[in-house]
Amino acid sequence: MHVRHCIVSAPGKAILHGEHAVVHGKVALAVSLNLRTYLELKATSTGKVSIDLPNIDTFLSWDLSDLQPLVSESFAKPDEAQRLDPELLGRLREFVGVADGNLDTRSMATLAFLYIYLSLFGSGWCQEDMELINSWAFQGERIIHGNPSGVDNAVGTWGGMLRFLSGKIIPLSRVPLLRILLTNTKVPRSTKQLVAGVKDKLTKFPSIINPVLDSVDAISCTCEKTLAEMTSEPITGEHYNVLEELIDINQSQLCVLGVGHPSLDTLCRVTLTHGLHSKLTGAGGGGCGITLLRPETDAAVVRDTVRDLQACGYDCWETSIGGPGVQQHGAPSVREDILERLGPR
Amino acid sequence: MHVRHCIVSAPGKAILHGEHAVVHGKVALAVSLNLRTYLELKATSTGKVSIDLPNIDTFLSWDLSDLQPLVSESFAKPDEAQRLDPELLGRLREFVGVADGNLDTRSMATLAFLYIYLSLFGSGWCQEDMELINSWAFQGERIIHGNPSGVDNAVGTWGGMLRFLSGKIIPLSRVPLLRILLTNTKVPRSTKQLVAGVKDKLTKFPSIINPVLDSVDAISCTCEKTLAEMTSEPITGEHYNVLEELIDINQSQLCVLGVGHPSLDTLCRVTLTHGLHSKLTGAGGGGCGITLLRPETDAAVVRDTVRDLQACGYDCWETSIGGPGVQQHGAPSVREDILERLGPR
Repeated sequence: MHVRHCIVSAPGKAILHGEHAVVHGKVALAVSLNLRTYLELKATSTGKVSIDLPNIDTFLSWDLSDLQPLVSESFAKPDEAQRLDPELLGRLREFVGVADGNLDTRSMATLAFLYIYLSLFGSGWCQEDMELINSWAFQGERIIHGNPSGVDNAVGTWGGMLRFLSGKIIPLSRVPLLRILLTNTKVPRSTKQLVAGVKDKLTKFPSIINPVLDSVDAISCTCEKTLAEMTSEPITGEHYNVLEELIDINQSQLCVLGVGHPSLDTLCRVTLTHGLHSKLTGAGGGGCGITLLRPETDAAVVRDTVRDLQACGYDCWETSIGGPGVQQHGAPSVREDILERLGPR
Repeated sequence: MHVRHCIVSAPGKAILHGEHAVVHGKVALAVSLNLRTYLELKATSTGKVSIDLPNIDTFLSWDLSDLQPLVSESFAKPDEAQRLDPELLGRLREFVGVADGNLDTRSMATLAFLYIYLSLFGSGWCQEDMELINSWAFQGERIIHGNPSGVDNAVGTWGGMLRFLSGKIIPLSRVPLLRILLTNTKVPRSTKQLVAGVKDKLTKFPSIINPVLDSVDAISCTCEKTLAEMTSEPITGEHYNVLEELIDINQSQLCVLGVGHPSLDTLCRVTLTHGLHSKLTGAGGGGCGITLLRPETDAAVVRDTVRDLQACGYDCWETSIGGPGVQQHGAPSVREDILERLGPR
């Protein structure tokens, strides 16, 4: 378990189009979100493994000598990333004291970290390594989420944009980097309930809802085509007009499916007064929304929009989608404020 | 040209579901709106024909001897209601002094009145008479509107609800009377521009918009089925739940088609805070909306809702849809305030 000193980062994720429709066999587009999570790995000579997750107020430390007996025989082999070892997970639950069914964020993060840490640490990323990272990230998802789609780990690994259809995930070769605002309405919602609500509507009114799902599918495909054009020909204002129109249409489609929310209507209304177009991202019913910024959108417009959204009680970040996936960083290439958060050099 | 003394009335019209989709070959439902227009016909011995339209500040009077030469040979025959006589219309334009292309409300009303007055006045309404009234009303529409669908005159004549598909208008045999609020946002809009906007979206994104039109079509059909059930089985809360859900879905579909408006979003938001469901009716982009009231909706709820909508600057009427079409009234059966508006007895 030799650990080389390094800094790595992986992007966040947003659904660009196709949330909910994807549950019913339609295309969805997932994009990397350039709000990155950084991890610094430091070698120590203390005989201890420590994990510091300041975002969730978690600092934990274990004696390596206590951890080692939990690993059965050998270090993990690449193909072990394909399946979750229920015995190792069980031993870890017992070791950390996390009961089955406990879904507390800190417990989940700790379990996922220890499982992956004990199973693997390599370095140097060729295509095969990337696939390995993706597989291990998926194991983390399985520990935390239960029945993950595989989109989150794939976007975190490959970045850019992924086409997601009937459980099949296809990374799109080239997509432009798009400036966005990510807004958290802070309205809590239950993804499970929202997904069930759409299912109920589909069962109750198949002749009404099925065509809407087809229409959402066409939104994702049209968006994918437009983004591909933006990498193969000069980007024009018309490209952005289409992206904005698709955002407006998809937002209304999601309202047809019953997963809108007054807080999201407010988001759309407020941003539109600044000439910007928004949609919910993910489950809806509150939660987060994305707002497209055009290349020419002035910093003052962004500032005023953020101010108005904050006045609604929302949290707001200016960031981008379609950026790189998991990355290794030399310390000089990492932003000062991030290095500070990672702790003393 | 013998005129018998009588009072007649005809209902207003609202589109319940299917506006815009109907332009693209889908079903729409038009309903009578119990905001009635009353007309009192009085015999005179002055040798004058007078028309008093207080709503549009119009009082006009002509010598019958001046009008008579405008009619070519004989009084109109029923089948003349099937076509507009361009020569008579031309003579009337000249007589009244209304240039072709002048679409002023008073001029249009005067032309339509004189055309129908000079062509026909009969009495006693069997089925055939109703068809005749409908045909003559359609001629009035042609004079005023240019290229009317025939829905407005049909709803005014037959009342109740009509199914409208590819230019074919089918009166539905039995529909329940539904309490509604009619709200005028007073936001002006151009129907022509809105219809063209939907056409443009359809041309630009056929794979996205065509399924939405299919979905709207299914809304109209589901609504028709639900209303039919409400006349053949005991009305339950679930019937109203479905009607409300269809209203919400159709409103979002119309936003997908791009004919929503912030004023209509406000209407929906305000009424929903009182537990009531609304949609735009007609062209959208402002204009009017309808809000369904349930049988058990309390008068206090209606009053508070109207107060909140008026605070938004909207006009609001409590009325009903699905009521009778054109009617003849004995004076005792007409409401006092209406008799007063019609003038001295």
